[in-house]
Amino acid sequence: MSLAISYQDIERAAQRLRGVAEVTPLLHSRELDQICSGQIFVKADNLQHVGAFKFRGAYNRIAQLSDAQKQAGVVACSSGNHAQGVAATAQMLGIQATIVMPKDAPAIKVERTRSYGADVQFYDRYSENREQIAHELCERLNATFVPPFDHADVIAGQGTVGLEICEQMDGEADVLLSPLGGGGLCSGSAMAAKHHWPSLTVYGVEPEGYNDTQLSLESGERQSVSQTGSSICDSLMTPAPGELTFPINQEYVNDVLTVSDEEVEAAVYFAWKHLKLVIEPGGAAALAALLARKIDVANKRCVVIASGGNVDPHWFAEMLQRQSA
Amino acid sequence: MSLAISYQDIERAAQRLRGVAEVTPLLHSRELDQICSGQIFVKADNLQHVGAFKFRGAYNRIAQLSDAQKQAGVVACSSGNHAQGVAATAQMLGIQATIVMPKDAPAIKVERTRSYGADVQFYDRYSENREQIAHELCERLNATFVPPFDHADVIAGQGTVGLEICEQMDGEADVLLSPLGGGGLCSGSAMAAKHHWPSLTVYGVEPEGYNDTQLSLESGERQSVSQTGSSICDSLMTPAPGELTFPINQEYVNDVLTVSDEEVEAAVYFAWKHLKLVIEPGGAAALAALLARKIDVANKRCVVIASGGNVDPHWFAEMLQRQSA
Repeated sequence: MSLAISYQDIERAAQRLRGVAEVTPLLHSRELDQICSGQIFVKADNLQHVGAFKFRGAYNRIAQLSDAQKQAGVVACSSGNHAQGVAATAQMLGIQATIVMPKDAPAIKVERTRSYGADVQFYDRYSENREQIAHELCERLNATFVPPFDHADVIAGQGTVGLEICEQMDGEADVLLSPLGGGGLCSGSAMAAKHHWPSLTVYGVEPEGYNDTQLSLESGERQSVSQTGSSICDSLMTPAPGELTFPINQEYVNDVLTVSDEEVEAAVYFAWKHLKLVIEPGGAAALAALLARKIDVANKRCVVIASGGNVDPHWFAEMLQRQSA
Repeated sequence: MSLAISYQDIERAAQRLRGVAEVTPLLHSRELDQICSGQIFVKADNLQHVGAFKFRGAYNRIAQLSDAQKQAGVVACSSGNHAQGVAATAQMLGIQATIVMPKDAPAIKVERTRSYGADVQFYDRYSENREQIAHELCERLNATFVPPFDHADVIAGQGTVGLEICEQMDGEADVLLSPLGGGGLCSGSAMAAKHHWPSLTVYGVEPEGYNDTQLSLESGERQSVSQTGSSICDSLMTPAPGELTFPINQEYVNDVLTVSDEEVEAAVYFAWKHLKLVIEPGGAAALAALLARKIDVANKRCVVIASGGNVDPHWFAEMLQRQSA
């Protein structure tokens, strides 16, 4: 089966993002090296515009719309980083974004999305279907829907994270760890990195209870998880792998690891204390897998993607109190 | 009067630090640009080893000791970032560090310093003189004292921050803002940056009540401030400019700005929320001056040094609760 994107699509996305997205730093920490007995690098895409890699995919999708499509605007469903990525892109390109959000979404997420000039359209998550609302909005406005992960342009945009890592590293890495939700970041970055480093081992990292890609890779076909469990990794709580992202992950991801809420919280605290970075729970999943020794990276060169840093200040304050008690 | 260092000393320090210190990123944020109506870059030296620029100066000093001096070890007085810089350097070079600290120093600072393998020697700050204790220790151990700022090698090491900024920027900057305590970072960085960009305007930023360099520049000679005031910028609470750093600041710093605790706390929160960086109060002084509009940087290219990220988790948690209330 042919994949939704090729390596060249990621290269073209990188050209589109040049001078628009930040080239986020690949950071190194002696503390991490010592703890892991390896050489660890952190790709800090929490320092990207809107505080998350999601800007890359959103921009790569929206920038390719025709002038007529741009004029009609874009629509997305998200109360998280994707919403902000789409809103910030639309603002940059001077077009209208409408974001569909549950009416009980946290005020801070609504505020952030509006701060980029987007319209927020609320729905009742108990009685209404957000996809249907988004679909109707697109019909009415003649607008273009921007999916959070399952679109070739979105995947190629997120893959620029992996491409940048290869450009920034001095020599090859042995291991790459990426947070894994819908799979856009992990699949694109795995494809880009393995193009440069064919012997690289890539791990996706999912929260316990949301290990849909892990189960799907084991069974060889897309599996859903029940949506009853909770996780502090709100940005990784996708119930099933994408139709387009899954085959790429099947091809390029060696294995999937899972992390518990406790492991993720410890990683968020470690990043605050030692790396001096603000990483949100979902964004710290890969770091959590490393710190919890889910794999042995002794004497290896290992890159961990920190994918986002948008986190509730009250939760963060309570986390600091708990972890430093 | 001849200055303690020349630009070439900073270049030599940079060679010494190559592959040892981190080349910390020069970050860019659209939020900051929009707020300031300029182009703002943040030199994130809170991402340096030990979470502060102090590693640079300590390493540049200690690495130049003779083998016999190294064997006898080093001594420093500090309960803050300088202690950690000296301890981490000593650990890297396999030599013994003894750090003189008040016996009521926060446990976390003692723990951090010990984590780098240093001996901690306590003194009673009400009945004993720390300089005398350090002097006696040096005599007894035949060890070398590493001053926190007032030494040519230390100043040259800190100046590599300014040198790196010039190497990392694409084109010249118009304005550079640096936190200013003892003056090592500000003086060295100002000298390095003005060597490359003679028309640069450099501002040092001091906490209100610890504006000793501001008063000294106004009067033309070194002035002390009374040590009765308090400040959340613990790393900038020096009562008087250095004998060596002051003439360099006189030559290269255009002006000194002051910031209040409230302005600093708002900057620490801004960095957490928008930059996704953990910056300690003293390390955020320059950012605070910018955000509080102490100068107008409209349409200018402005670099702000974030100099450290070592901060008490309880204070940080309370700050998050206050600022997001």
